[in-house]
Amino acid sequence: MTEISSLGEFKLIEQLTKQVELKNPSSVKGVGDDAAVVDFNGKQVLLTTDLLLEGIHFDLMYVPLKHLGYKAAVINFSDIYAMNGKPTQLLVSIGVSSRFSVEQIEEIYSGIYLACEKYGVDLVGGDTSASMTGLTLSLTCIGEADKDKIVYRSGARPNDLICVSGNLGAAYMGLQLLERENTIYKTQKDPDFQPDFAGKEYILERQLKPEARKDIIELFAKKGLQPTSMMDISDGLSSELMHICKESGVGCRIYEDKIPIDYQTALMAEEFNMNLVTAALNGGEDYELLFTLPLEWHDKIKELENIREIGYITALDMGAALVTRDGQEITLKAQGWTAFEK
Amino acid sequence: MTEISSLGEFKLIEQLTKQVELKNPSSVKGVGDDAAVVDFNGKQVLLTTDLLLEGIHFDLMYVPLKHLGYKAAVINFSDIYAMNGKPTQLLVSIGVSSRFSVEQIEEIYSGIYLACEKYGVDLVGGDTSASMTGLTLSLTCIGEADKDKIVYRSGARPNDLICVSGNLGAAYMGLQLLERENTIYKTQKDPDFQPDFAGKEYILERQLKPEARKDIIELFAKKGLQPTSMMDISDGLSSELMHICKESGVGCRIYEDKIPIDYQTALMAEEFNMNLVTAALNGGEDYELLFTLPLEWHDKIKELENIREIGYITALDMGAALVTRDGQEITLKAQGWTAFEK
Repeated sequence: MTEISSLGEFKLIEQLTKQVELKNPSSVKGVGDDAAVVDFNGKQVLLTTDLLLEGIHFDLMYVPLKHLGYKAAVINFSDIYAMNGKPTQLLVSIGVSSRFSVEQIEEIYSGIYLACEKYGVDLVGGDTSASMTGLTLSLTCIGEADKDKIVYRSGARPNDLICVSGNLGAAYMGLQLLERENTIYKTQKDPDFQPDFAGKEYILERQLKPEARKDIIELFAKKGLQPTSMMDISDGLSSELMHICKESGVGCRIYEDKIPIDYQTALMAEEFNMNLVTAALNGGEDYELLFTLPLEWHDKIKELENIREIGYITALDMGAALVTRDGQEITLKAQGWTAFEK
Repeated sequence: MTEISSLGEFKLIEQLTKQVELKNPSSVKGVGDDAAVVDFNGKQVLLTTDLLLEGIHFDLMYVPLKHLGYKAAVINFSDIYAMNGKPTQLLVSIGVSSRFSVEQIEEIYSGIYLACEKYGVDLVGGDTSASMTGLTLSLTCIGEADKDKIVYRSGARPNDLICVSGNLGAAYMGLQLLERENTIYKTQKDPDFQPDFAGKEYILERQLKPEARKDIIELFAKKGLQPTSMMDISDGLSSELMHICKESGVGCRIYEDKIPIDYQTALMAEEFNMNLVTAALNGGEDYELLFTLPLEWHDKIKELENIREIGYITALDMGAALVTRDGQEITLKAQGWTAFEK
């Protein structure tokens, strides 16, 4: 018998879905991108789904229920934006054990509704179930896009510019902080313990209440900018870049000194004595957009707010590497999400 | 704090979704039917999702993994057929703890693929996750239908005929049998114990490997038959009929002696000393179709294979009742699914 941890998430998915042959003419793109693409009368419909399990994806000790609902919705919207689409409908399934009250479930939904309101999405269905154990959330988001606007992971070409929105590593450092304070709280067993979050609001918000980059997608439309490839950064820059390289059949170089990092993220990494670039490369859950642009956009990128050029696409045989401040090349590794590892 | 069990599933969903106002022009129908309806360029897209949790919806002691995958897919297809649509795509999310092997997950998927193959559906995406506890399956099915062919729960009118496909109570009696043999197995602690399933294959198959009524939907198309309302029977005839009555603002009468019941179901009920009609009314998971037809179809229904007329729709003030063999009227109750109850 093969242990799941010996394969990891991506190889497991590959093994489970390698036999799939799409047969319906409406099925345009199946497994392997941020969202599936289905064509209905020429309108391309985007579909994405996320499963969130208590103890794996969230710890109710430090995640407020409303934030949990908000985040669960937003990370689905983010997958639709990552295809250059617009999220329009949401299905929400929830499994709850009897230790939850109706009021607590309503808290989760209030977060979901807040996200729907902000992003213009309709909640249209779902499923509600009892659970033997913890809290389970499964969300499916439907989005739409014009056929010629959809951006896949597979379109990056040598010499394309690699760009990211916002900054990286913040959500990961926020998680480290929450886990540290949670450990202190448990160890002290002092009911009056107050965690020390002053000056760290930004990284906490990045972890607890992330936003999807709707603004960047709107900017693309406004500027007539069509990325050649794109995905959202949920597992970490390094892992996502390797997905784009693999799907596009290319290599890449990114520069350590160009990776955008917020001041609070840097301070927190110092406090934890952690390597800042490692946090930015491998810390997940930032939900920023990673995308590639044709070379001719090089001069214009500087004028675009919240977008940073961090490197370029190469031929496949160059491999994928990070160029450090002192000019060394370090091969990128997909550490990313490791929930299957022990 | 309000306990979830004090509300039950349907009231909980009502409470959680009462504030929803659909805002996107593409959102045609939200919560409250077998599937949501979204319009893309005039093509109506159907969306349904199901969450299946170990210990609540299935017991791996007696549900083979391949059957579990098959059933999980089929019950989603059934929801699309219940709207008079055709399932086309499927998203599968799975959460597994480390006690599962890759081979076991492949077993589940082999069942899902078998169902996809049989019903002509493409698996196009999903999510895979570790789990702290048991097995979690969340499936979302996408289907399509012509706008004027979609059948909602809300279209039943007084004097319409109430019909069901196939027969009822079989899946429930199959479950009773499985649970009895499982209890004996656990009590005896005899590793060589072989359950006694001879002559009971039909009710076991109805429970473990149910089918969706694709054939009935195809018959509707062939005969030019358009139901006024429809849903699939997952929670039990009584509960589903009350949904149709509520959504359509009508009452109903169904006849005890007209409810179709298979011979094996009847034998099993006798063996268990259970009321057969109660099993047929309240036993769930048959995934037969319950639908209403205009009165003029009365004479033609007899010619349709696998369809039985069991009663008629009345004005709202008549209420919903079962007419027993001796002419008594018994008010219908929605016992249905009680997983939230203790």
